[in-house]
Amino acid sequence: MRQMEEKIVSCGKILAGDVLKVDNFLNHQIDVDFLAEAGREFYRLYKDEGVTKVLTIEASGIAIACLTAECFHVPVLFAKKSTTSNMSKNVYASSVESYTHGCTYTVTVAKEYLNENDRVLIVDDFLAKGSALTALLDLVEQSGAVAVGCGIAIEKSYQEGGNSLRAKGVRVESLAKIAAMSEKDGIRFC
Amino acid sequence: MRQMEEKIVSCGKILAGDVLKVDNFLNHQIDVDFLAEAGREFYRLYKDEGVTKVLTIEASGIAIACLTAECFHVPVLFAKKSTTSNMSKNVYASSVESYTHGCTYTVTVAKEYLNENDRVLIVDDFLAKGSALTALLDLVEQSGAVAVGCGIAIEKSYQEGGNSLRAKGVRVESLAKIAAMSEKDGIRFC
Repeated sequence: MRQMEEKIVSCGKILAGDVLKVDNFLNHQIDVDFLAEAGREFYRLYKDEGVTKVLTIEASGIAIACLTAECFHVPVLFAKKSTTSNMSKNVYASSVESYTHGCTYTVTVAKEYLNENDRVLIVDDFLAKGSALTALLDLVEQSGAVAVGCGIAIEKSYQEGGNSLRAKGVRVESLAKIAAMSEKDGIRFC
Repeated sequence: MRQMEEKIVSCGKILAGDVLKVDNFLNHQIDVDFLAEAGREFYRLYKDEGVTKVLTIEASGIAIACLTAECFHVPVLFAKKSTTSNMSKNVYASSVESYTHGCTYTVTVAKEYLNENDRVLIVDDFLAKGSALTALLDLVEQSGAVAVGCGIAIEKSYQEGGNSLRAKGVRVESLAKIAAMSEKDGIRFC
């Protein structure tokens, strides 16, 4: 999606430590009209898949998930992050290793909101090593639902997450795929 | 807003400890089409106020804030929660006492996204004692922006938050106002 690449170039900032700062439109301040365009693109890609639910992870996935789910007229379900492993019997749980924050946390969804009749589109803002996405796919699998695929705003394609999931047969559609990125040379898209 | 009251009656559950569980449409699973209606109602109430930004707090305010901001065609800004007091110079910060979780946390927004030219509509899912809302109003005041008012999905009017803010001159519009609530007798709206 050319608009996502243009937005990253015009609004993103590359910081030390392989950080792409896009908090002026994606994950702190949210350009709602722009993300609604992104949602329409995910709808175009997945409209024939019988999606019943859009799954994401708090907090920064919620905006793009809602603006996508509006096109499908289905609910959003957002996985909650927890640092405790004291889980109730009423949730599906999976762990995520956060490379950004150097910790492991647990994500959960209530069992009552995901079941074998669901066809789930997973949406998130970033895909790098794929740890969060793998956990969301695990939650879907635990519930017996079908994951029809993933919709990602920005994929760092020079990290292994996206292609490793594709190699396992998961459909992953990313609106911008970054082939290389550096403070000195800027961004090259795939 | 009659639809919000009906939704609470049909989908909400009253639990021990003064908890109204609405996580099947508001703060875990999100009924996007329904919250878009709520957003249109906030737009109707505030459309003449020259709103430039919708401010909320992660995570459960993000959905309703986005669906409101879509009507105004303005960005959302969501305050981030942090348990550390190690704040950068680049953020406005304020503290929130959480009665639900029995702790105090800090909320922050980046200074670059809020300034004296902004007219801010604050949106959140719940209003009870008003601690989160007071912190958001504080962030707006620190930035020099104007808070045009607040849009709340569900107000527990038997707690003091809403009326205490109104007494200070803050415009607070709540889509459902609960006068009393108990497991035994159910909900009475104002």
